[in-house]
Amino acid sequence: MGHWRGGSTGRPRVAVVGAGFAGLAAARKLARQPVDVLVLDKHNYHTFLPLLYQVASAGLEPEAIAKPVRSILRRAPNVGFRMAEVTGVDLSGRRVLTETGHIPYDYLVLAAGSATNYFGSPEIEAHSLPLKELTDATILRSHALSMLETAALVDDREQRKKLMTIVVVGGGATGVELAGSLAELKRHVLPDDYPELDIESEARVIMLEALENLLPGFPPRLQKEALRQLQRLGVEVRLSSPVESAEDGIVRLGDGTTIQAATIVWVAGVKASLLSEGLSEELARGGRVPVRRTLQLESHPEVWVAGDMAYLEEKGRPIPMVAPAAIQQGAVAGENVIRAVQGLPLREFRYSDRGSLATIGRQRAVAHVPPLQFTGLLAWVVWLVVHLFWLVGFRNRVLVLVNWAWNYILYEPGSRLITRPLRRQGREVREEAVGRGVAKP
Amino acid sequence: MGHWRGGSTGRPRVAVVGAGFAGLAAARKLARQPVDVLVLDKHNYHTFLPLLYQVASAGLEPEAIAKPVRSILRRAPNVGFRMAEVTGVDLSGRRVLTETGHIPYDYLVLAAGSATNYFGSPEIEAHSLPLKELTDATILRSHALSMLETAALVDDREQRKKLMTIVVVGGGATGVELAGSLAELKRHVLPDDYPELDIESEARVIMLEALENLLPGFPPRLQKEALRQLQRLGVEVRLSSPVESAEDGIVRLGDGTTIQAATIVWVAGVKASLLSEGLSEELARGGRVPVRRTLQLESHPEVWVAGDMAYLEEKGRPIPMVAPAAIQQGAVAGENVIRAVQGLPLREFRYSDRGSLATIGRQRAVAHVPPLQFTGLLAWVVWLVVHLFWLVGFRNRVLVLVNWAWNYILYEPGSRLITRPLRRQGREVREEAVGRGVAKP
Repeated sequence: MGHWRGGSTGRPRVAVVGAGFAGLAAARKLARQPVDVLVLDKHNYHTFLPLLYQVASAGLEPEAIAKPVRSILRRAPNVGFRMAEVTGVDLSGRRVLTETGHIPYDYLVLAAGSATNYFGSPEIEAHSLPLKELTDATILRSHALSMLETAALVDDREQRKKLMTIVVVGGGATGVELAGSLAELKRHVLPDDYPELDIESEARVIMLEALENLLPGFPPRLQKEALRQLQRLGVEVRLSSPVESAEDGIVRLGDGTTIQAATIVWVAGVKASLLSEGLSEELARGGRVPVRRTLQLESHPEVWVAGDMAYLEEKGRPIPMVAPAAIQQGAVAGENVIRAVQGLPLREFRYSDRGSLATIGRQRAVAHVPPLQFTGLLAWVVWLVVHLFWLVGFRNRVLVLVNWAWNYILYEPGSRLITRPLRRQGREVREEAVGRGVAKP
Repeated sequence: MGHWRGGSTGRPRVAVVGAGFAGLAAARKLARQPVDVLVLDKHNYHTFLPLLYQVASAGLEPEAIAKPVRSILRRAPNVGFRMAEVTGVDLSGRRVLTETGHIPYDYLVLAAGSATNYFGSPEIEAHSLPLKELTDATILRSHALSMLETAALVDDREQRKKLMTIVVVGGGATGVELAGSLAELKRHVLPDDYPELDIESEARVIMLEALENLLPGFPPRLQKEALRQLQRLGVEVRLSSPVESAEDGIVRLGDGTTIQAATIVWVAGVKASLLSEGLSEELARGGRVPVRRTLQLESHPEVWVAGDMAYLEEKGRPIPMVAPAAIQQGAVAGENVIRAVQGLPLREFRYSDRGSLATIGRQRAVAHVPPLQFTGLLAWVVWLVVHLFWLVGFRNRVLVLVNWAWNYILYEPGSRLITRPLRRQGREVREEAVGRGVAKP
């Protein structure tokens, strides 16, 4: 074996932590270069996160948006993979620490991404469902469908309405897209699936946003348009409504009001991976690591940080934690590693903002491709094309396209399977409901 | 709501327990008839079990072989669904007992299928993985792939070989098909995925069969051919090798020899659902319920039993526990319920044995379509067409076809994702391996 996977080749060893957008972009730049590369990730697959909400709302199967990392890296003989949970970085010892041994490196690319930000509330973490990983999406799908199956057993109207209520906390792109696709499901699919329930009047999709507008970072016109489109789909949007805390099946707002909901989805924020801690004297907002414009750590120039973990400003504003920025940074980090190996001057990172997109149900979307702003069908077509283009793997594209065409024509998303056991508030809500009042047939 | 789902319509109430092949066939016959039907299943989806092994071997995603029951039953306004675990039947009280309430019936079709038969060995049950449900398949897939990821960390050759060994216990159709597809994976996919491992010489697929031949019920010539094909694929087949017991990562044979294997799959037998108990004074082999030729219970003619649960002989031999028999019996049971409602004489069940098929990797299969016997490519094409034809749902057919074409052309099954946590022997084996000797890079 001619690379780092087995023995030592004497070539510089580059560890890449994370097989998300940034890590893979770095690995691609490092492929077939005179270095030995090891990519580490806790999962054995890369996830196309922009479509995660479609797995949660049963529109896509998980396999359509995930691809094994080993399969992606197959054609790069100098790039290996190890499935491992990275627990820390020993900067002075130049070692990546994992649960299954430590990995020495000469150069390091840190691209461990971000995690759900509960803003320090253990109550919210315990009583809500996140949407940040592939398994989160299948758990959310299973949970929401289980609540409907339970609702079909319950006589008490209030209890039934609670089981049929989904609260989406956070009006960013993920929240808006999830709420939109749940509303489409409610409108086109669930009434036929559950004729014994009064979906139209008892099922609710509620979106809570702390700020005055949805989609922060979008132009005001598109924010307003997204709000209008969501409302037309039947989503109850409450702006300026920060969530104070959550209990079992209850969301408590800042103004003291409460909402009863068996499904609470928390997509109100992300923060950099915990690996950021200790990498810098001071971390930026969201726990991100300040880096040089070359993406190097100030104190350890053999370490690059890319993607959601890295903090850098462009025109006085932080670079957003989005996939295009991660891909661009990963590529620059990978290229700079090679330049460092070759003794060449490093490249400075410039963020090329190609715009922002969010889809809101069938044929509805908002797109900001500066200086243009689109809404409606055209924005939706742009969204489709862009997502298919960026999806990793031709097979995944075919699967997604087959699913989309199917759903579009027949209004029948196929993945409405309950494949995960209930957990946390779900189990309790179901037990409570079943204990209280089961319908007598 | 005009049927049993909500209030009472005064029409006869028919409960169907199980949404497998038999239950769905019965429900289809009962659709749009003057009865109110309620189908019960612990899952909200129907599983096309004949392709389950392809989910386990990463060739198909779970969603391709499963379809929501509510979606299948959509067009039958008199047929409802309830997701519930049926815990028993109160024959004299005419009630189906579930965890979430009891369901009174006028007529009952019992089609709860079968479960894995461990022949009374709690050791085997604790230390092996079954393959009987959709989640079993994703757990098996995740487990086997995790073992390879762990093997990539281990220096000790014996330990590594153990992690890379899969034992399939049981040489029936499921075992043969699973072993064949695992062998194909080993041959065509894993060497590229795991260049740091010596897949060719260290990974093993071992098939253990207690009897002298594989595929009981097939003609001797096809049994021999299946053996030859499996061996050519590299499966180590041991006939006349009953398993005595299993420990953590160890299979113990009847002759005292042991095999070290981190993945032990138990597909050596099935038995009727535990619901059979108490339905008849005496149960037949495999816990099946003896029924009249009309599929009624002797003691309770308002109860029909169909599929794997039912015991009936044809030409002096038990009707096998296979999908075609279940479909035929379900249809007759459903029809007989209608005949009973209408006061017409009941139909007697006749099993039409259309033959047996088993596929063994790419372009290899054995087919027995009496009086014909095929092997090789022709049998394989027959197998493909038959399975696509019987798969429920056009969308599932498209998904399966896309996957098959993809895998066939590119030798690259796409679902090699580890999406399930390790459990039982897997976790321990991994911890043990990691504790013992993690490779130092």
